Amino acid sequence: MIPKQTVNMTDVARRSGVSIASVSRALRGESGVSAATRDRILSAARELAYVVSPEASRLSGGPTGRVGVIVPRVDAWFYSTILAGIADEFDTVGMDLILCTLPTSAARHRFFEALPLRRKVDAAVVVSLPLSARERTRLDQLAVPTVFVGGHRTEDHRPWVGIDDERAAQQAVGHLLRIGHHDIAMIQAADDTDIPWATDQARIRGFHQTMQEAGLADPTVVTVKWSVDGGSHGMETLLSRSRPPTAVFCHSDEIALGALRTLRRSGISVPQQVSVIGVDDHPAAELSDLTTVAQPVREQGRIAARVVLGGLGDGDASGPPASVTTLPTRLVVRGSTAPPR
Amino acid sequence: MIPKQTVNMTDVARRSGVSIASVSRALRGESGVSAATRDRILSAARELAYVVSPEASRLSGGPTGRVGVIVPRVDAWFYSTILAGIADEFDTVGMDLILCTLPTSAARHRFFEALPLRRKVDAAVVVSLPLSARERTRLDQLAVPTVFVGGHRTEDHRPWVGIDDERAAQQAVGHLLRIGHHDIAMIQAADDTDIPWATDQARIRGFHQTMQEAGLADPTVVTVKWSVDGGSHGMETLLSRSRPPTAVFCHSDEIALGALRTLRRSGISVPQQVSVIGVDDHPAAELSDLTTVAQPVREQGRIAARVVLGGLGDGDASGPPASVTTLPTRLVVRGSTAPPR
Repeated sequence: MIPKQTVNMTDVARRSGVSIASVSRALRGESGVSAATRDRILSAARELAYVVSPEASRLSGGPTGRVGVIVPRVDAWFYSTILAGIADEFDTVGMDLILCTLPTSAARHRFFEALPLRRKVDAAVVVSLPLSARERTRLDQLAVPTVFVGGHRTEDHRPWVGIDDERAAQQAVGHLLRIGHHDIAMIQAADDTDIPWATDQARIRGFHQTMQEAGLADPTVVTVKWSVDGGSHGMETLLSRSRPPTAVFCHSDEIALGALRTLRRSGISVPQQVSVIGVDDHPAAELSDLTTVAQPVREQGRIAARVVLGGLGDGDASGPPASVTTLPTRLVVRGSTAPPR
Repeated sequence: MIPKQTVNMTDVARRSGVSIASVSRALRGESGVSAATRDRILSAARELAYVVSPEASRLSGGPTGRVGVIVPRVDAWFYSTILAGIADEFDTVGMDLILCTLPTSAARHRFFEALPLRRKVDAAVVVSLPLSARERTRLDQLAVPTVFVGGHRTEDHRPWVGIDDERAAQQAVGHLLRIGHHDIAMIQAADDTDIPWATDQARIRGFHQTMQEAGLADPTVVTVKWSVDGGSHGMETLLSRSRPPTAVFCHSDEIALGALRTLRRSGISVPQQVSVIGVDDHPAAELSDLTTVAQPVREQGRIAARVVLGGLGDGDASGPPASVTTLPTRLVVRGSTAPPR
């Protein structure tokens, strides 16, 4: 007999002759698997005594009382604020938080290959990480309920908490249009990883859509590295044009802060000559009097924690409900935007 | 016979008729306990089969492979950057990081009374937390090697990593003196907790000492709440005086950013009318062109992690060496300071 601990989704997939992704979907009761295939998978799982966690962890000694939180890095406002929200909620119920950061591609590769959280946690929260197919499969092999929060919404109906980034972009660009701007450019941020960030794609989609609806075709977009310096360079590029825009929509506040720095150094007055708007309501936005679209970051962490804890609390082997929670964003008008001269 | 798991420092203290603090010091080989008392404690510990961790955890099933990191909060630059440094080092050796945040006094009280890390970790890292006598005793009852990092250096020779805050203040004030200022005020930050923060005390000590050595007695000090708004209010107070200072030394960059905001809103030019200097080299300092004294924050986390891992690695029951690592700070001159007019 195969010892229970060594049975995982790979074994079930092999025995039932389907992909690991299909096994994951079937065991979680998600769509995308035919009834016949599902039956075959469930029967293979039963034969192999495969039990999806938290049951699996209970079989090998009860729940661990720990939840893994996987975050690209902690030394950036957005991530550390989401983490603070998660920690708040875990603390109130005495759940231990195991922190996994993936600041480099080497750390990321090591994490998904070694799966250091395996058999150590009852559930996992993944913060803002766009996953490759391989990484998603490996995450499934943790065989614990998993909630995704911030930025990257998965397409396969997994529990997710975040904002509508397309809508956030519409709110920002809509504000610039309403106060009279037509010549609006975007400084777009791109990560240097292979996998596109859903946030980046949604914000530029929202920009193009809003401009198009206003009858403004082919607006200027400058793509830069996601950083304050990136924003600074993006604005330099825009200023080098023969006719710079009267307003700039920045992918995020950190990009906008870089743009403001370039404008200050170039002696261009904000908002008299150029209006600038960001997204996030980063703490530095208020300090720099930056108009922005605020997102509730700590709240996203709190809700993700509640979703994951709720899934553990009711003892439901299928994990937390495959819920999607979209929190509202709101325009915060400060001194960096004004009608064009 | 008393089962090993239920024996703790309290039992040893009771049996040997001394305080828990003395037991802790004796078991760690620290000074402050007479030879006779130490012998009595060690003999009581032996009789009770008390073994200080990591041995204790090994007896009850081997090391846990986890280290607890206790941090006041994670949604602030200094703490999240130290945490990132710790996480970097833990990741390279596969040590799991259990994160404990104490953002409110209720959470803090709960943590020290319930000791949720007990028997769950091989060691602990405490970030920037000034401890009451009671809290220190409770922390000792975790009975694992503990390293302190950032801000608060304990007086009892425990392993500590940080900077010399007095020296940082001297570097900042020395710069203002060298470029010709005499009328220098300080905006000092105070936490609203009962326990004074060593950092706060050291920075104001460095200020007074440097001023005194320059023959400048009784400089103005305004004490505010530690926040950007606090810095803003502090500068308002200074401006309300009949003769505002020509230069202001701010407890930290976040205080200085608030001060800069007030100056900008008051139409007072920096550095022409008032010079401002902070401490930290917060990312926002560069953005705001703020002169500061930089401290290596991530590096403090990395070194603390190495100290704690080193203590576990060599299997020494007394924990990591009682080392004190003081990292250098350096003056970073930007556009917010200039000679007085």
